[in-house]
Amino acid sequence: MPTRRSFLAGALGAPAVLHGRRYTAAEIQRLIERGHVRGKISKDDLPTPALLLDLDAFEANVRRMAEHLRRHGLAFRPHGKTHKCGEIARRLIRAGAVGCCAAKISEAEAFARDGIRGLLITTPVVGRHKIERAVALARRCPDTIFCVDHPQNARDLDAAAGAARVRLNVAVDLYVGRRTGVMPGEPALKLAELIMSLRNLRLAGIQAYAGHASHVVGFEKRREASRAAMEQAAATRQLFESKGIPCPLLSGGSTGTYNIDVEIPGITELQPGSFIFMDVDYNRIGGRDGDFYGDFKNSLTVLTTVISKPAADTAIVDAGLKAFSTDKPFPPECRARPGITYSFAGDEHGRLSLAGEARSIELGDRLEFVIPHCDPTVNLYDRIYCLRGEAVEDCWRITARGMSQ
Amino acid sequence: MPTRRSFLAGALGAPAVLHGRRYTAAEIQRLIERGHVRGKISKDDLPTPALLLDLDAFEANVRRMAEHLRRHGLAFRPHGKTHKCGEIARRLIRAGAVGCCAAKISEAEAFARDGIRGLLITTPVVGRHKIERAVALARRCPDTIFCVDHPQNARDLDAAAGAARVRLNVAVDLYVGRRTGVMPGEPALKLAELIMSLRNLRLAGIQAYAGHASHVVGFEKRREASRAAMEQAAATRQLFESKGIPCPLLSGGSTGTYNIDVEIPGITELQPGSFIFMDVDYNRIGGRDGDFYGDFKNSLTVLTTVISKPAADTAIVDAGLKAFSTDKPFPPECRARPGITYSFAGDEHGRLSLAGEARSIELGDRLEFVIPHCDPTVNLYDRIYCLRGEAVEDCWRITARGMSQ
Repeated sequence: MPTRRSFLAGALGAPAVLHGRRYTAAEIQRLIERGHVRGKISKDDLPTPALLLDLDAFEANVRRMAEHLRRHGLAFRPHGKTHKCGEIARRLIRAGAVGCCAAKISEAEAFARDGIRGLLITTPVVGRHKIERAVALARRCPDTIFCVDHPQNARDLDAAAGAARVRLNVAVDLYVGRRTGVMPGEPALKLAELIMSLRNLRLAGIQAYAGHASHVVGFEKRREASRAAMEQAAATRQLFESKGIPCPLLSGGSTGTYNIDVEIPGITELQPGSFIFMDVDYNRIGGRDGDFYGDFKNSLTVLTTVISKPAADTAIVDAGLKAFSTDKPFPPECRARPGITYSFAGDEHGRLSLAGEARSIELGDRLEFVIPHCDPTVNLYDRIYCLRGEAVEDCWRITARGMSQ
Repeated sequence: MPTRRSFLAGALGAPAVLHGRRYTAAEIQRLIERGHVRGKISKDDLPTPALLLDLDAFEANVRRMAEHLRRHGLAFRPHGKTHKCGEIARRLIRAGAVGCCAAKISEAEAFARDGIRGLLITTPVVGRHKIERAVALARRCPDTIFCVDHPQNARDLDAAAGAARVRLNVAVDLYVGRRTGVMPGEPALKLAELIMSLRNLRLAGIQAYAGHASHVVGFEKRREASRAAMEQAAATRQLFESKGIPCPLLSGGSTGTYNIDVEIPGITELQPGSFIFMDVDYNRIGGRDGDFYGDFKNSLTVLTTVISKPAADTAIVDAGLKAFSTDKPFPPECRARPGITYSFAGDEHGRLSLAGEARSIELGDRLEFVIPHCDPTVNLYDRIYCLRGEAVEDCWRITARGMSQ
């Protein structure tokens, strides 16, 4: 069923192929495999479940964040664990990002293979083999920054760097959230002093990621949580500098706190991730002006197909818990059509409860769902289909998919 | 720390390389990439998080299920959605399986590329392009069986098969669980009669998957649930045959009901999946003789590394919700060491609460966890490392990983 937009596109002579030649399934698979989809296929041609990116919304999100940070004079190093996609990292850099964060060494290696520089690996790299890989990465990409929260890890990195005659940039990873990091203040200072004393390490500064603050519901509460965390980080940076330890970097922040952390003096760069896509989770945290967090647009959805209609008020779609991550307590949302409530029905299926007009949904109908949590959902897919209206303009490989090592 | 087994292996002159040459990280990555790991690397060499298979336990599970079904005279068509691995499908066939179930067309195509035959696609194949792919698959693998629960889908399959001059084997998919399927009895009979009337379809029989029964806690309750479902399926099969419609196949069953469904006359084959791996979820359903379901062994774990130790009673491992599926309400379990309680700490991290002796856990320690739910966790990994004791004997690609289309 053509939408008004695709009908107009056809009428106005836009991509004729969308309404001209119909490709076979095998041809479509080949076009997708090669990434040669532009002007050739439309949303209706995609095999479901499919991960879709609304390019207009995505580009607006990138612009908004980049302009915001430029206005506030902060560097922009978006987190690549959200998209795991070399092409998206490149576009963010083109929009003004200084580089790309990566959660793990294997993710950073994938970005490096895609030509991305300015990498910051946000999780400590631990273990003999991974440290070897860190040193090899630093040789190829000398501006890479590694995070350290433990003296032994600093010594291990130093020894491996020395053996390879490489110098590693390291940031002190601060415990301001609830995961990794050394305690702010004196413990962090001690670690910084150790790093300064190790000849194959170069202190880049501080990383302070307050993950718990990013999803606090309600703007004022979130501001309190982020300030409590990030002011400790800023104070630690001051402590370093008061001891004559240069600390040019203080990296932190998230999509939920992007307009909070810019008010805290001493933070030098933000590393938000989800703003490019958004998800049900972030929509719920509330914005400055209301319950719906609408600063960024929902650009990411999963397209599904109805494959069974066991009753008038029930439909089964082909997307279950291998198509959406399940770590949030709320389901995917079908925004385009009212009356649809999704619940997980196993690995491969979703069950839709249908009310009102939605009861007319039929076998073969295709429905789009906003994703509960974007990062781990993207990690389930090999590619992301980029849409301009109904046309598939591009098809990007999720090059670091599965790279959790 | 060598286990008794690896110590003995070393002492007895088993794989010397485990105790001899140490490979560099780059060499290990190349060996893994090529699958040439046998006799070369040990568990300690694997980059974490890593998906591990204990081959002794896996082989015992395969033997047990194959012998059980042979003894009861039922065919064995294990479900490939659990492992998504061509090598495992091959081993199951070598042990006596008649083929391999696949959840979706893209998963079946992956198995077909791996040389697997006897495919049964357990979910209806809906939509023009997917039906084209079904027809192409049937041409390459004529014994493939497709499931149908809707008259329009039967007609669509017939038309596509006719255009391609192929005949498709189809099974009536019965609604005995809570997902897809046509209602048992008369509605199923009508669909069977329609299929019989379509010249390009061949009725293979019935599929009846009672997914809700497989995880009922308590053997007797589970028996009741599975019988209530599967006896309807058996009665529908009888109804077909009483109308002169041959119905050689009645496929269903699961790891939870493998010793229940063999008692129901009329079932011709079982399609269990999880028994090869097991998981925390299946362990909890209870066996014939107790609260722990120990009919099959836990062969699957995720190996992690401690990457931060923020406090004496807290450690952070490098495996979070991109390393374990999160669809169950209980966490991964560390069985080998007491005193460790895992909780998810975001995409990339797990937080361990440490009690007693476990407080001595240090940065760099490696810990193995039994997985809450095997199928969607396997789908997060590109390969599975096969261990014989501490030695990595093999490394299999999860060839249908991500194939949910």
